[in-house]
Amino acid sequence: MGRMATPEDLDPTRMAGGGLRAFDRGTAVSSLGDGRFAAEVEPVWNIGNAPNGGYLLSIALSAVAQSLPHPHPLAVTAHYPARVEPGPAEVRVEVVREGKGSSTAHARLVQDGQPRVLVTATYGDLDRLSGPTSIQAERPGFPPPDECVRAMGPAAPVFMRQFDLRLTPETAAWAVTKPSGVAEAAGWTRFADGREPDPACLPLMADSFPPTVFNVVPSLWVPTIELTVHVRGRPAPGWLQCRFRTRYLIDGYLEEDGEIWDSTGRLVALSRQMARILS
Amino acid sequence: MGRMATPEDLDPTRMAGGGLRAFDRGTAVSSLGDGRFAAEVEPVWNIGNAPNGGYLLSIALSAVAQSLPHPHPLAVTAHYPARVEPGPAEVRVEVVREGKGSSTAHARLVQDGQPRVLVTATYGDLDRLSGPTSIQAERPGFPPPDECVRAMGPAAPVFMRQFDLRLTPETAAWAVTKPSGVAEAAGWTRFADGREPDPACLPLMADSFPPTVFNVVPSLWVPTIELTVHVRGRPAPGWLQCRFRTRYLIDGYLEEDGEIWDSTGRLVALSRQMARILS
Repeated sequence: MGRMATPEDLDPTRMAGGGLRAFDRGTAVSSLGDGRFAAEVEPVWNIGNAPNGGYLLSIALSAVAQSLPHPHPLAVTAHYPARVEPGPAEVRVEVVREGKGSSTAHARLVQDGQPRVLVTATYGDLDRLSGPTSIQAERPGFPPPDECVRAMGPAAPVFMRQFDLRLTPETAAWAVTKPSGVAEAAGWTRFADGREPDPACLPLMADSFPPTVFNVVPSLWVPTIELTVHVRGRPAPGWLQCRFRTRYLIDGYLEEDGEIWDSTGRLVALSRQMARILS
Repeated sequence: MGRMATPEDLDPTRMAGGGLRAFDRGTAVSSLGDGRFAAEVEPVWNIGNAPNGGYLLSIALSAVAQSLPHPHPLAVTAHYPARVEPGPAEVRVEVVREGKGSSTAHARLVQDGQPRVLVTATYGDLDRLSGPTSIQAERPGFPPPDECVRAMGPAAPVFMRQFDLRLTPETAAWAVTKPSGVAEAAGWTRFADGREPDPACLPLMADSFPPTVFNVVPSLWVPTIELTVHVRGRPAPGWLQCRFRTRYLIDGYLEEDGEIWDSTGRLVALSRQMARILS
């Protein structure tokens, strides 16, 4: 399944060229004034010919983060009405409300004057939330990363090179032998260049695993229609443990429900997307 | 727990005054041209002093449905940056893209010139979806409606009068004896006036049950921050079977995950909301 991570990959102090890690470079935006931001949709985040949906959401959120007073995404939603091409794009941000505890913006990724991704984002401060806590689910036990399967075969999309992603042997069945029949993708992930996780990267991580339905039906492309991510905590450094599950594949449409835990075992994000199988 | 449903309640041909059922009357909008629609936020859908979030989403979708060529909501999302008051409101709809299989609009519920609910909606035609089906979850078995608990005590919000809602005895524990400790709300529901379910009412139904956390912590108000509903099928006439669950209540914030099945046992909607406990 391709190379294993090297000690260099594991060095969290290693910087990519230009001083920015790949995620920060790929989502960088520069203000043009009036809520407009110039962005570059990099082809290294493609699945086939199309940019990954979580990546496009992250570009829009990069502009949102510069526009709102609160530091962290709490609940962010993207709808994907039109396909985005790698290359220049513009993000247009409208600040809808700045409240005391949270603030909300609407943002659009625009190419050729056409809005192609619609994002609504509620931001807050994860360090200042207060209220009761009750965890009513157990974190699943996975084999350690070294006993998982690196999702990096020769046919893997270029997108996958941005991550050091290890699928549990059970959920890697489609890649290793044959589909397991269980619509699940689970395992460990981190950025390939050693960038540590933070709240800003969780919307991307929530769309970074191979589709759950690879274990159910042959499918080449499973484009995202809508993606919502709830950020529930600030992740600690290290591996993220992720599980994505689909219960209802109906007439080619499916939900993909994600949970992300940090290296200390805390849940840090929930995600759900609606996607569609195109064969 | 208040009166039981009468035979009149069960008569699906009974019409409310004015020829419209309560849901259709409460979400009626009239076009003002240029994507603007006049709406009336009715106080009978209040929880305390605030309109229910699913109801506000439904008002916005009523205007969206008049603006898009596709008949059914597929994936709809609302963020709630500011509180809405009962009374006149305006819905502003922007059609973002009309595609062959689906179309997308952004809509806002506006009062006093301020956008208070932001909605993004992808519509399609549920009768024309095609592709593989694989159901990987079992529908839960509930006691029949007559053995469930009518959620209609004297302290129930006026909102509850719009429904004939029966909680399973297990999940009604908070109302009958004491909180069960399990963050779940489940049971059967239908409109009190006999209006049959259709795709348009499912976003409301997805926000119509008492909060799951009533079974965990004392809480008076659990306002919705973000609500996304995936409509997965056209419901048959009769009862809707619903289950809402919360796994992660963290620092006062929670997700509420919903599943809705129709009277034939088919899953017709999935929902998730982020909400916050205000005590």
